[in-house]
Amino acid sequence: MRLLPPLALVLSLALPIGALAQTDPLPSWNDTPTKAAIVDFVAKVTNEGGPDFVPEADRIATFDNDGTLWVEHPMYTQLAFALDRVKEMAPDHPDWKTTQPFQAVLEGDMKALGASGEEGLMTIVGVTHAGMSTADFEDIVNQWITTARHPKFDKPYTDLVYQPMLELLDYLRANGFQTFIVSGGGIEFMRPWTEQVYGIPPAQVVGSSIKTEFEVKDGQPILMRDAQIAFIDDKAGKPVGINSHIGQRPIAAFGNSDGDLEMLQYTTMGVDEPRLGVIIHHTDAVREYAYDRDTTFGKLDKALDAAPERGWVVVDMKNDWAKVFP
Amino acid sequence: MRLLPPLALVLSLALPIGALAQTDPLPSWNDTPTKAAIVDFVAKVTNEGGPDFVPEADRIATFDNDGTLWVEHPMYTQLAFALDRVKEMAPDHPDWKTTQPFQAVLEGDMKALGASGEEGLMTIVGVTHAGMSTADFEDIVNQWITTARHPKFDKPYTDLVYQPMLELLDYLRANGFQTFIVSGGGIEFMRPWTEQVYGIPPAQVVGSSIKTEFEVKDGQPILMRDAQIAFIDDKAGKPVGINSHIGQRPIAAFGNSDGDLEMLQYTTMGVDEPRLGVIIHHTDAVREYAYDRDTTFGKLDKALDAAPERGWVVVDMKNDWAKVFP
Repeated sequence: MRLLPPLALVLSLALPIGALAQTDPLPSWNDTPTKAAIVDFVAKVTNEGGPDFVPEADRIATFDNDGTLWVEHPMYTQLAFALDRVKEMAPDHPDWKTTQPFQAVLEGDMKALGASGEEGLMTIVGVTHAGMSTADFEDIVNQWITTARHPKFDKPYTDLVYQPMLELLDYLRANGFQTFIVSGGGIEFMRPWTEQVYGIPPAQVVGSSIKTEFEVKDGQPILMRDAQIAFIDDKAGKPVGINSHIGQRPIAAFGNSDGDLEMLQYTTMGVDEPRLGVIIHHTDAVREYAYDRDTTFGKLDKALDAAPERGWVVVDMKNDWAKVFP
Repeated sequence: MRLLPPLALVLSLALPIGALAQTDPLPSWNDTPTKAAIVDFVAKVTNEGGPDFVPEADRIATFDNDGTLWVEHPMYTQLAFALDRVKEMAPDHPDWKTTQPFQAVLEGDMKALGASGEEGLMTIVGVTHAGMSTADFEDIVNQWITTARHPKFDKPYTDLVYQPMLELLDYLRANGFQTFIVSGGGIEFMRPWTEQVYGIPPAQVVGSSIKTEFEVKDGQPILMRDAQIAFIDDKAGKPVGINSHIGQRPIAAFGNSDGDLEMLQYTTMGVDEPRLGVIIHHTDAVREYAYDRDTTFGKLDKALDAAPERGWVVVDMKNDWAKVFP
C-alpha cells in the first residue's frame, strides 16, 4: 500500500521551492534569449556531475569597466577626472592659460585637446596622475568621485553603473564565480571605489598603470607615482593583464568595445568546453546613449563583426534591459 | 535552591573544549617566544571588539618563497631548473659546448657561470624561459618539478617546503587571512604548483616576470613569452608588486633575506596598529642549512640589523622549529 505524503510535508517542501522560483536573480533583465543564454551557461558550468561542470576555483569571470559596468559617454570618466583636476590646479599654474594642452582644457576646446594627441594626453596624465604618493592619489580620487556629477544625468558617476550588470555580478558570485575587472582605465583610479560599488576588492581589479617607486620618507613607507606608463591594459594588453594578475584563463568575459576583442578571444577560443563571451551594445539613446562603430569613446566594430562566428552574446541595451541605472 | 548541572551536559560542554585546547594549529613550532609573538598577533587582530581588531578584508599576509617557504640552497630552485634545461636542450645546440655561459653550465663550472654576470644569466633565461607560450612553459615546469631532486636531500623540491610554514599558512587562513606569495622568483615558475603545495591559488602569487605577447595562432589564443624583463619583484620591487597585484598594504609579512627588507618596511612602518614582520633565520646546518650575512643565495644582513628596532620577529630555525620538512 502506498502512503500519500502528509500534507504538512508537501507544504514545507513546496513553499520554499515556490518562493525560490519567484526570486529572479536578474530582475532588470527582460526575458529574452540574451538572458536565457547567460542563465543557461551558469546552469551548465555549476551542474555538478554534468558534462560541462567547472570547479569553483576555475570559475573566473572578467568584466571591462567603461561602457560595460558604468557609463563612458560623453567621455571616459577618468578623462573627466583629469580635466577637472587641470581646472582645479590651474590657479597655481598661470602659464597653463597659454600653454597647450592645458589651454585647450581650460577653454573647453576639445578639438585642440584632441589635436595635442597622445603626447598631450600624457602631459595631462603627468600633472594630474603622477608626482604624488599612491595614498595621496587615492585621497584625490575619493574626493572627486564623491562630488563630481555627470553632465547629462546630473548624478555622481558611481550612480551611473548598470543595474543589470550589478545583478549579474551578484548572480555570478552567488554561483561560485570570482569576478574581476579588466579595464583599460587606471588601476588606482578604480580601486578606491570598486569594492563599495561593485563588490570587487582591490586585488580583483586589473587595469592600466604608471610606474611607482618605493621609498621611506619621514619614517613613512610610500609609493611615489612617476609619469611613466608601466602597463596599458587594453586590446592585446588585456590577456596579458589577465595572465599577470589572475594566472588563469577566464571562462566568461564581458566587454563592450574593440578594446575587449582580445579578452573575448582569449576567453572563448580554442576550447571545446562552454565559454561565455558577452558584448554590451549601447543601443538606447533615450535611457543612456546609442553608439558603436563611429564614436571616440568605446568604439565597437571588429568585435561586433566577430560576435556571430564566435558565438558571443550581444546585449541589446534597449531591448534586453528593463532598467539601466539603479 | 541551586541545581547542579546534569553530568551529561557538563561532559558534552567540557569534552569539545578539552579537545580544542589540545589541537595546537602550529605543532611544528616549539613553545618559544617566537611562536607566542605570532599567536598573540593573530589573537589581537581577530578579536572582534578589541582595540586592534582588523576586518577580514584587510587581513593580508605576504610570504617570500625562496628560503621562507622552501629551500633555497645550494642555489635558488629556479636556477637549478634553468641549468637542467640547458643540459636537456644541449644536444640540439652543439655550439653551446664552446660558447659561454652555456659551456660553464655544461661543465658545471659555477665560477665561470658567475663570471658571465647578469648578461650571462639573461642569456640562460632567454633560452630556458622564453620563446614558447605560457602554456608550454607551464608544461615544462610541471615536468621538471615532479621529477627533479634536490642534491643534498634527494627529494623532490616540493617536499622541501617548511612544515612550520605550511602550518602557519593554514593557521592564518583559518583566522580569515588571505595569504599571498611575493617572491623574487618567476611568477610563472611558481603558479603551476603553489596551489597544491601551499594552498595558494595563481591569483595570489606575485613574482618577477618577462614580457608576454598575445596572439591567435592556428585558432588558439596564446601568450608568447619574450626574453625581456617585465618586472623584478625583489627588494624595492616587492612593495611595488604588492601594490600592483594586491592593492592593499599587508598587515603581516614573512621573509628571510635582504630582498624582503622593503616588504617588511612597507608592512610594518608608519602605523600605530599592530603589524607582524617575521624573518626566517637559517640557523640549522644539520637539518637544513646555516647562513645569513655571507652567502650568494638569500643574503640576510641589513634586514637582520633592522629587526630589533622595527620589532620584527626573528625565527631561529634550529630552536624555534620542532620539525623542518613535512
